[in-house]
Amino acid sequence: MLALRLIERKRDGGRIDAGEWRALANAYAAGHVPDYQMAAFLMACFLRGLDRAETSSLTDAMLHSGETLDLAYLGKPRIDKHSTGGVGDKVSIVLAPLIASLGVAVPMMSGRGLGHTGGTLDKLESIPGFRTDLSLAEARTLLETLDCALIGQTAEIAPADKKLYALRDATGTVEAIPLIAASIMSKKLAEGLTGLVLDVKRGSGAFLPELERGLELAKTMIELGADHGCPVVTLITAMDRPLGRACGNALEVEESIAALRGEGPADLMSVTYALGAEMLVLAKVAPDQDSARRAMERAIGTGRAAEHFQKMIEAQGGNPAVVDDPALLPQAAEVELYVAPRRGFVARVEPRAVGRGITALGGGRTTMEDKLDLAVGFMITARPGDWVEQGEPLATIFARDRAGVESGRHTLRTAITIADEADPPLPLVSHRVSASGVEVLPQP
Amino acid sequence: MLALRLIERKRDGGRIDAGEWRALANAYAAGHVPDYQMAAFLMACFLRGLDRAETSSLTDAMLHSGETLDLAYLGKPRIDKHSTGGVGDKVSIVLAPLIASLGVAVPMMSGRGLGHTGGTLDKLESIPGFRTDLSLAEARTLLETLDCALIGQTAEIAPADKKLYALRDATGTVEAIPLIAASIMSKKLAEGLTGLVLDVKRGSGAFLPELERGLELAKTMIELGADHGCPVVTLITAMDRPLGRACGNALEVEESIAALRGEGPADLMSVTYALGAEMLVLAKVAPDQDSARRAMERAIGTGRAAEHFQKMIEAQGGNPAVVDDPALLPQAAEVELYVAPRRGFVARVEPRAVGRGITALGGGRTTMEDKLDLAVGFMITARPGDWVEQGEPLATIFARDRAGVESGRHTLRTAITIADEADPPLPLVSHRVSASGVEVLPQP
Repeated sequence: MLALRLIERKRDGGRIDAGEWRALANAYAAGHVPDYQMAAFLMACFLRGLDRAETSSLTDAMLHSGETLDLAYLGKPRIDKHSTGGVGDKVSIVLAPLIASLGVAVPMMSGRGLGHTGGTLDKLESIPGFRTDLSLAEARTLLETLDCALIGQTAEIAPADKKLYALRDATGTVEAIPLIAASIMSKKLAEGLTGLVLDVKRGSGAFLPELERGLELAKTMIELGADHGCPVVTLITAMDRPLGRACGNALEVEESIAALRGEGPADLMSVTYALGAEMLVLAKVAPDQDSARRAMERAIGTGRAAEHFQKMIEAQGGNPAVVDDPALLPQAAEVELYVAPRRGFVARVEPRAVGRGITALGGGRTTMEDKLDLAVGFMITARPGDWVEQGEPLATIFARDRAGVESGRHTLRTAITIADEADPPLPLVSHRVSASGVEVLPQP
Repeated sequence: MLALRLIERKRDGGRIDAGEWRALANAYAAGHVPDYQMAAFLMACFLRGLDRAETSSLTDAMLHSGETLDLAYLGKPRIDKHSTGGVGDKVSIVLAPLIASLGVAVPMMSGRGLGHTGGTLDKLESIPGFRTDLSLAEARTLLETLDCALIGQTAEIAPADKKLYALRDATGTVEAIPLIAASIMSKKLAEGLTGLVLDVKRGSGAFLPELERGLELAKTMIELGADHGCPVVTLITAMDRPLGRACGNALEVEESIAALRGEGPADLMSVTYALGAEMLVLAKVAPDQDSARRAMERAIGTGRAAEHFQKMIEAQGGNPAVVDDPALLPQAAEVELYVAPRRGFVARVEPRAVGRGITALGGGRTTMEDKLDLAVGFMITARPGDWVEQGEPLATIFARDRAGVESGRHTLRTAITIADEADPPLPLVSHRVSASGVEVLPQP
């Protein structure tokens, strides 16, 4: 009866109070509210919206449906970075060891790829032996010894969110800002953070392509953070083209290792440093962005960041030798260049097409049950705005067989547009959103 | 994938086309679309609405998910009456034999009581032996021989509607005009009608208490009828107090028999004649309302209508002797008067309270699984506006035991308000809605 009453109230534009959100989340997680009632309720939430207090109560309710990492005893700042997801976005893999090597605890809970976007957990699992299915107790030990744990959403963390997210995915109720924000924040708060840096992607390959919607999500997340004593800073970054060159699980780990050695592509390094600087300032281990950036450059230049990654890999059961010899990562049987079919400007490198192309090669998921081929993918060297001659290499295809190479060619023909003119791409890091408001960032 | 696509489209305010409605209804009836997806879709329909063509397509889709009574071969008009439901509303039981006795086929498919409203099927089953679970073949035979069949929604009729209705009931998506209209009309069209008279109740005891919403339902039903070659006429009638005196299953059958003998209470007779006249004029067996009314009065005065009911009871397995001796109906063990606790005007006889009181006595349902005590209920002789002295009888309680009598007293104390002043009740039959528009009816 509770569920029906709440459905009708939200349907009619009414408010749900904190106690009701908690009762509903607990009853749903325990299987006492059927999926069909929750689905009707979610659609009413989608179309009627939630106000700030409701979004906060829903976050609390999901957070308290499970266990939390209580990390105050570590006696140091605990900062995570979360991205709304994109193609080629391996920033988490670079940032986690980099920031942890600077004395900030990074309890990083990531997801798996679905649809056109990849997932950090899948990428990490391309390191032979690497385990992401750690218990909370194991994660706590890693945080004590190495200041970092790279884990998935365990069954203990926010089970109501986990069950609700699967239902939203099947009922067309994913893209509602309050539901997205509450889902992210319930998991992040379970990590026991003292601060969170959010990377909201915009552009054609983003989950929320429109800047306005990204800013709305940023604002909602910042409010949720403020309501829970966890400051949130958001950067809006470009996802109208893939980030970096590598797109595909093992390929992205290889590029992440290069980045930790100071050999990453410029766009990846820019986004990594921008987000990392926010983390270090939030953690109060750097007084300002400039000194934060210098600290990161030092950690990379001295090899300390790469070394920290090596220790983390070993501690999570993986083969640490991959950091020195990336050839130990899964290798594709077929590797072939893709060249420009004509001369002109690179007008578009469409992330959704690239992401779907990885899935077509076997490296991405259409359902959560799919098994992945972690070796496949693309290295795309062509950048929007580049001038290219006919026959000049634009990318490399990594496939398991000849059919995969053909599929990869087809993907790149669709994804990369060469034209006589090219509009400038979106600025890489365009806005900074914090409790003090939205700041349009100067462009280099 | 079809379901998710349609959910998203309706969520965003888009239209569903005829082929899609049909595919969705069939897939849902066959169990290929899960309840949770349909629940999200229904909520999106509730909040976004359906336009006329969509409502018509949904009606078609539900109608064609099952079988239909093809009755054209009968060679005579086929008219049904449908009411949105109320307390004490036994008009169907009077009208079916009355109109059938005048040479019009009445294929009447009725429902069971739920919540505060009673159901015609439950009432009829208080006649010993009476069967309402006829097959379509049996119903056809009855229509051939007696021009009438009183049946429930069989598994063969509009199965998609049956399944959808149960889901709407559990997900807060009942009170949407297009969904209500499509549900009613899909079943009525399955009866193979040449015309339909709709009784839309208004007032505190009605399913849609507001006149505006009732008129909207009437308009939608008239449009649906026009789209399917089945003219619909609607009367708006009062449900701010019970209709007639008897409230409770066997008690209402007894009052229906009295009405067929010309001894029914005035308000019941007025509503019956008003709706019956519309049926006879729609059927073209009467040229106008006045001659229709005279025809009905004759059928009742000569005993022909009561005799027809007797034949119908016998044909459906019931004991026809109840028509001459209503004492053969189930009798309550405890019968007790309820008297006025003070002098004054009868200000309110609240139908919802009476309906809930019948349920408390065991004569109504809170879930579809409840077994009913068909003998219990109330005979309420007090009418709003009456002046009563303290100690004057207002009603009789029919209960199975002393606890029931106490519960009945409590119900009537809540339901019947006596005050120093009384506002006039709603006019009994206030509006007539047809393809030519809304007509406010003159009051006697």
